[in-house]
Amino acid sequence: MIQTVEEFKTLVETVKATSGYKDPIAFGICRVDVSQLDNDKVLQATYPVINWKENFGSAAVFIDALSKCGVEIDNAQSEVSVNITYDFVKHAMDSFNPYLPEAMGDAHRNVQVIIQLFQLLLDDGMKEGEFRLVFLFEDAACVSVEATYLKLYALSLAKAELRSLNLNGAFGALPNVAWHGNTPIDLDYLRVNEIELKLRNEYPEIDFVDKFPRFLQHVIPADNTRILDASKVRFGAQIHAGTTVMPGASYINFNAGTTGSVMVEGRISSSAIVGAGSDVGGGASILGVLSGTDGNPISVGENTLLGANSTCGIPLGDACIIDAGLAVLEGTKFNISSDELSKINEVNPGHSISGNIFKGKDLSSLNGLHFRQDSLTGIMSVRRSTREIKLNADLH
Amino acid sequence: MIQTVEEFKTLVETVKATSGYKDPIAFGICRVDVSQLDNDKVLQATYPVINWKENFGSAAVFIDALSKCGVEIDNAQSEVSVNITYDFVKHAMDSFNPYLPEAMGDAHRNVQVIIQLFQLLLDDGMKEGEFRLVFLFEDAACVSVEATYLKLYALSLAKAELRSLNLNGAFGALPNVAWHGNTPIDLDYLRVNEIELKLRNEYPEIDFVDKFPRFLQHVIPADNTRILDASKVRFGAQIHAGTTVMPGASYINFNAGTTGSVMVEGRISSSAIVGAGSDVGGGASILGVLSGTDGNPISVGENTLLGANSTCGIPLGDACIIDAGLAVLEGTKFNISSDELSKINEVNPGHSISGNIFKGKDLSSLNGLHFRQDSLTGIMSVRRSTREIKLNADLH
Amino acid sequence: MIQTVEEFKTLVETVKATSGYKDPIAFGICRVDVSQLDNDKVLQATYPVINWKENFGSAAVFIDALSKCGVEIDNAQSEVSVNITYDFVKHAMDSFNPYLPEAMGDAHRNVQVIIQLFQLLLDDGMKEGEFRLVFLFEDAACVSVEATYLKLYALSLAKAELRSLNLNGAFGALPNVAWHGNTPIDLDYLRVNEIELKLRNEYPEIDFVDKFPRFLQHVIPADNTRILDASKVRFGAQIHAGTTVMPGASYINFNAGTTGSVMVEGRISSSAIVGAGSDVGGGASILGVLSGTDGNPISVGENTLLGANSTCGIPLGDACIIDAGLAVLEGTKFNISSDELSKINEVNPGHSISGNIFKGKDLSSLNGLHFRQDSLTGIMSVRRSTREIKLNADLH
Repeated sequence: MIQTVEEFKTLVETVKATSGYKDPIAFGICRVDVSQLDNDKVLQATYPVINWKENFGSAAVFIDALSKCGVEIDNAQSEVSVNITYDFVKHAMDSFNPYLPEAMGDAHRNVQVIIQLFQLLLDDGMKEGEFRLVFLFEDAACVSVEATYLKLYALSLAKAELRSLNLNGAFGALPNVAWHGNTPIDLDYLRVNEIELKLRNEYPEIDFVDKFPRFLQHVIPADNTRILDASKVRFGAQIHAGTTVMPGASYINFNAGTTGSVMVEGRISSSAIVGAGSDVGGGASILGVLSGTDGNPISVGENTLLGANSTCGIPLGDACIIDAGLAVLEGTKFNISSDELSKINEVNPGHSISGNIFKGKDLSSLNGLHFRQDSLTGIMSVRRSTREIKLNADLH
Repeated sequence: MIQTVEEFKTLVETVKATSGYKDPIAFGICRVDVSQLDNDKVLQATYPVINWKENFGSAAVFIDALSKCGVEIDNAQSEVSVNITYDFVKHAMDSFNPYLPEAMGDAHRNVQVIIQLFQLLLDDGMKEGEFRLVFLFEDAACVSVEATYLKLYALSLAKAELRSLNLNGAFGALPNVAWHGNTPIDLDYLRVNEIELKLRNEYPEIDFVDKFPRFLQHVIPADNTRILDASKVRFGAQIHAGTTVMPGASYINFNAGTTGSVMVEGRISSSAIVGAGSDVGGGASILGVLSGTDGNPISVGENTLLGANSTCGIPLGDACIIDAGLAVLEGTKFNISSDELSKINEVNPGHSISGNIFKGKDLSSLNGLHFRQDSLTGIMSVRRSTREIKLNADLH
Repeated sequence: MIQTVEEFKTLVETVKATSGYKDPIAFGICRVDVSQLDNDKVLQATYPVINWKENFGSAAVFIDALSKCGVEIDNAQSEVSVNITYDFVKHAMDSFNPYLPEAMGDAHRNVQVIIQLFQLLLDDGMKEGEFRLVFLFEDAACVSVEATYLKLYALSLAKAELRSLNLNGAFGALPNVAWHGNTPIDLDYLRVNEIELKLRNEYPEIDFVDKFPRFLQHVIPADNTRILDASKVRFGAQIHAGTTVMPGASYINFNAGTTGSVMVEGRISSSAIVGAGSDVGGGASILGVLSGTDGNPISVGENTLLGANSTCGIPLGDACIIDAGLAVLEGTKFNISSDELSKINEVNPGHSISGNIFKGKDLSSLNGLHFRQDSLTGIMSVRRSTREIKLNADLH
């Protein structure tokens, strides 16, 4: 058993000096839910703590503990998932020994996981395969459920930037399941037992059917974040503190979200990002890459307003306004008077545009644009916006 | 007790040869939930198995078992609901005897129901009226809760085509109740017990208040179907395998739905039907017959796109596009150039239209239409659409 | 112990004659939920009964019972919240004695509360501070959770008119919490216990995160009211009998709602009110005062239709129509022909307008307006509406 911090450091250095040793990109210990019909089919992985390009000492301790249990992991694989045993936990406890007394609150979260696992094993024993140690050595396409969840956690906990991870294969890796609260249920289990469950009044309440869980099943939001309906934010979304998600027509998909306080009453589709102080109005739609656009992800800048029921199909800069009901797509043409054009160029140094008719695409990412339609002629135009959106401080 | 399949067949033939015997349109055994205040007020009927124009042998066995219990049903009524007794179950078991060993999985589902009921009665006894055998002899207006549910099951299980059933009287037949998970609660029960329930912290969580339950309370979707929020699909909707229902602004009412893989991010109102490969964009509205239209149900064809926040008030053919934000109603006028008109007529053999201004109504159900608005003039027009919508295979 | 109604009346008169006595605006007994980490942090207050400018005799009995327990309340404060003790309940029982036998159903609801509390105390004892007696002596800014809930109850139970109460400070008074069914959970509790809860598979299902609970957690709707998804109506909203709230894009915020049977498929933002017989179409947005408007609350009259995906930014009178997809904002300009203008003036006696171009603001609250856009020119105009909206009686 390691007795001092010095000894601990020496242990870590020794492990890391092992030939072929490699720091993982990410790692963590998760509890997995398996199919009610098949113990080998993982349906969900729940991580109390994830490590993302950090805490490499804990990773070394874990790899060492595995090794002491006779398990050598193959770090040439992009992802590795290993069943946790009592022996592994005991070895990790022994190595973390100097940190046990101070492992609480925000300190030594990996140590806390080991302590809790140890207590849990003493109390209840352990189903084989219920707890797993997962490493990511390369950001390659997703293969296992456990590694896919590790990436989704990194996004939702803002440890990785939106759009920065390789999520190819995620739809293939995650099984489609029925969700009863936090519990995933194999659809085949329902089929096999439908008659008995229904007659005995034990058919479970199904909240939704999807490959992804909901954000609030895995992530605790900041004190000033509000999500008025859990169904509105998919796990893998990133919700910055101060964001409010209303329950009307809003939705935030995975790998999409906010990077500051934002009022969300509309749709932030997959890969779309909205900046601080912006307001996605009731029913407003930001097109995503999964369906409806040609693959260019959309960023919306700061203090920008997407009016109620507007549609945003191009990236927007700061302090823009799309009027209620308007659709601004890549191919939509807009008039800009020479007067307004010079005002727009003024607030967009280095992005001078010229002409009087512009496609939406040509106006991508510019600041200070106000998209409008003249109701007496039907002509759509862009002017320099005359106000920045300010959110109501009470709501964020 | 029937010993052989031969004997079983003879029994069925004998029963069916009885004078006045009539095959039912549909039948099934359900468990009913009654009011917490009144045992005679049915709030919900849950069928583990329904039979729709099929399995007439099982119907004959059931009618025979009732008869042996002294219950003669009146098949001149459009619907019949009879309480199930221990004796009935025993008689049905005796008749199904040759099939008992092989009744599992998809085989002999009615026999499985009887076996489970028998076991349940042995285990727990039975509340009188908890289980009922329901027959539909005519597709007349709905009278009982049990028969209304039988029809809604037929629609949601795709045993009957959308719009093919007589649902008159459904709103009258179904009581409006508070739903706690799968359990309907009489609103009066809450009123009578409000003080006690609230003070004792036993007031139930109410998920919704409606006459209809949700689709996922009664139906197990296909493995490649996703419904990201159970509230979004009413029981009685039909959701074809491969359909994805997003949680933003979407909704699918009863007697409405999809007939192929469809991306649903908007509203499919009562009686509306959407074809394979189509995309109902974020916030798009298809008008329904219950409110807002003049009663013509809307079908949307295949590979058609309703853009984000568009409104569709006319039937559409295949490969159509309504641009984001546009409202296409029966009375909306559209310009069509002669060039585009001939292209449109080309893909709509047998539906030649002529002129240059068309009302939405005149364009009903045509293929290959692209509805758009010129943003530099405000003029709405229709062109031949230049692409078919293709869904992202990952999502369906 | 009070023996007769006469004695009861004398008691009340005596109490009310006390020097400095003041009738409260409102009062009630609530059960409070406190933080899982801090008994002094109130998260929610649940009232089985509230009194709003009524039942002053019961208030006097309660104040007298407190006094007999040695508790004198300071009615110079705008709100007072006092912990309930066994002695208080006993004294109140003694005073209510003549009414005990007839306290049931709708009769003597405050007496019923005392009886239930007494029974509950006998059965289970009482946690200090679990039950509180709350008085409102002035409609000042909200300070405590208990008093804020009392006001929200008054709105949701239609005991106070929408917009009639001082809700300043409500966002400050109410803590932001995670909701698990009807139970509020301190976000810090989740943080402190995340590791243990997740590893033990005891992490609670979080339905939403907000300062406000949902309407259906506290209020029992009328028999002909439907709310198809509890997330769609915030507590503090007022929902008139016969209103149907669909689960698509709809939402009703606190201090907003309906004053008659209304079909709600869109957003009724904070402070917005919709009148009897009106139809808020799928995805329609009524702008609210909290974000998006300049602070003028919007009322929509009777038998008015907001078309699918329309946006309403001005108050509307009766029998108006906004066509699907249209945005009617304060600054939107509309053409009105002289012919239509005289028809409009005819149905708006006392509100004669003149001219041929009008801003939305100038048309505020007029009856019989039909807002439309000519699809062949893009010009928006207003005509005299030619039909009143009639709701489908089946749906309300």
